[in-house]
Amino acid sequence: TLAAPALAQSSPKINWRMTSSFPPSLDNLFGAAGDLATMVSEASEGNFVIQPFAPGEIVPALQAADAVSDGTVEAAHSVGYYYWGKDPAWALGSTVPFSLSARAQNAWLYHGGGNEMFNEFLDQYNIHAFPGGNTGVQMGGWYRKEIKSVEDLKGLKFRVGGFAGKVLEKLGVVPQQLAGGDVYPALEKGTIDAAEFVGPYDDQKLGLAQVAPYYYYPGWWEGGPAVHFMFNKEKFESLPPQYQSLLKTACQAVNGNMLHEYDWLNPPALKEVVAGGAKLMPFPEDVMQASFDAANEIYAELDETNPHWQKMWASIKSFRNDWYLYNQTAEYTYDTFMMIQQRAGKL
Amino acid sequence: TLAAPALAQSSPKINWRMTSSFPPSLDNLFGAAGDLATMVSEASEGNFVIQPFAPGEIVPALQAADAVSDGTVEAAHSVGYYYWGKDPAWALGSTVPFSLSARAQNAWLYHGGGNEMFNEFLDQYNIHAFPGGNTGVQMGGWYRKEIKSVEDLKGLKFRVGGFAGKVLEKLGVVPQQLAGGDVYPALEKGTIDAAEFVGPYDDQKLGLAQVAPYYYYPGWWEGGPAVHFMFNKEKFESLPPQYQSLLKTACQAVNGNMLHEYDWLNPPALKEVVAGGAKLMPFPEDVMQASFDAANEIYAELDETNPHWQKMWASIKSFRNDWYLYNQTAEYTYDTFMMIQQRAGKL
Repeated sequence: TLAAPALAQSSPKINWRMTSSFPPSLDNLFGAAGDLATMVSEASEGNFVIQPFAPGEIVPALQAADAVSDGTVEAAHSVGYYYWGKDPAWALGSTVPFSLSARAQNAWLYHGGGNEMFNEFLDQYNIHAFPGGNTGVQMGGWYRKEIKSVEDLKGLKFRVGGFAGKVLEKLGVVPQQLAGGDVYPALEKGTIDAAEFVGPYDDQKLGLAQVAPYYYYPGWWEGGPAVHFMFNKEKFESLPPQYQSLLKTACQAVNGNMLHEYDWLNPPALKEVVAGGAKLMPFPEDVMQASFDAANEIYAELDETNPHWQKMWASIKSFRNDWYLYNQTAEYTYDTFMMIQQRAGKL
Repeated sequence: TLAAPALAQSSPKINWRMTSSFPPSLDNLFGAAGDLATMVSEASEGNFVIQPFAPGEIVPALQAADAVSDGTVEAAHSVGYYYWGKDPAWALGSTVPFSLSARAQNAWLYHGGGNEMFNEFLDQYNIHAFPGGNTGVQMGGWYRKEIKSVEDLKGLKFRVGGFAGKVLEKLGVVPQQLAGGDVYPALEKGTIDAAEFVGPYDDQKLGLAQVAPYYYYPGWWEGGPAVHFMFNKEKFESLPPQYQSLLKTACQAVNGNMLHEYDWLNPPALKEVVAGGAKLMPFPEDVMQASFDAANEIYAELDETNPHWQKMWASIKSFRNDWYLYNQTAEYTYDTFMMIQQRAGKL
């Protein structure tokens, strides 16, 4: 008998399913799963196949991590903070209010031991995750009325995600849960007063300027939110080493690509939403400061009660302080100078 | 006779040499070639091997592109602007004074058609290149004396690279070429007045605070310089498709990684150089403005005479204007708020 050639075993056929938490209408976010699949398939000559699924095709958007955890699917593309209700430490892998900007979050995840800490935490869920994108700082959302001070937040029915909602509740906001498709009619009727979504490129598709024209920035609850590719840990570890390495490399390639694509798409989209009637405004300073203080109250409580949170947040905070000191020098002054030239019409 | 198994042909043994333009002492820049080699080797089960070489081992640092072009080596890790003397359009793949920041340069290269245009230009050199890192905005360098105004640039013997030197010459600077190891003694003796290098992490190793304590920012000649992996075009095209895809994916992974690593290393290094005696200062406004105007004079000339330059620069300029308008909203206000908290000791 002839022994099977050794090489025949080296590229085993593997078929995985990846459930995404992002609807296909968010084409950059949803498309990242397809980008990963293409990279992995091409480099393995079609032997390692990852098939992306939209929310609802296998499980709903917010059950992606559970589906990975219990092995319903091998993989998911999702965001840590969607699962803060299970444990707030989930959010630290992606972002929490007033945390790191996109570049800093990447620095912490890849070189500050951040992603290793996140994976230590995820061990209990049988999940191993790699960063899989970042949107950059998001916008603060669309408001029917102008927000002149922190007083105007009282009673504001605001469609806003989990952790940010918890912070804003302290300032009197009434957080609302609403599917994306219901946002426009709810704002039109006044059932809600405001809604936040992503950044100009994605926001533009909703046409909210017609019903809630005040478009605020920055989305301080998402200074640099990281998206993650999440893998069932046993399935990941059972991959042959060359596929593990390929998958990790491809995740890192996609991680950069999502931010680069948003950075290309958002600037022209911002001009278009303003041309379409959006009234672009910064949050008043007292809103920012009160939100920052409210967030810190929550963080102080979590530091006392949640060891995973405490360890990761201490690491982020230490770097956050160094990062925002460092950035006062070259990056900020360069950007400031270039913005002055932009305003002077010299670019 | 037994036909060779089909799979045996799918992972052919390939051995490539990659010459780097960066000395091993710049461990992040030089290390990127090794990172790429590891990713490619692991995912191909050791069949696709790329061996990195330091400058001088095969060819000197600034002959890396030539060595790729003529097939002396299959690959190089280098920077486009090193070759601006061949043609200024080389520099646009990496950066020119007052061009895009790191995020914007990546957006343009990957999604604005920038890297495609760069490769069209590189066709004449038989080179195909992928982005392979970014340092972020660099520092403005070390000066023996304070620079109080643009007048202080007259006669200044400044160790500064090619394109920036050309701009600074218009303001009276006398650009100097000096190997890295000669910088310290030259500043100590006063043979030169100033020297620029990279950012705090790399600069720190030179110990220049002892001999030229004024440490200026920003390095406006390198707002977001892209490094490139350059491949001999014929060699790249003769790779099997799965290796081409793997190489491209790995280049993109390394591209992000370099910036993330600098972003992790620079903030603490900045604190250390200041603790070590560096006097951290922003360039005076008139120096920035005069430099910007001088750069624009050169760009206007090139627009008239160099079609490759004109096409690429027009594309960059259009995005640069949109980018620095967009960034006045969420990114800048978020960073500004966080820096205010940092200064207030609240982070």
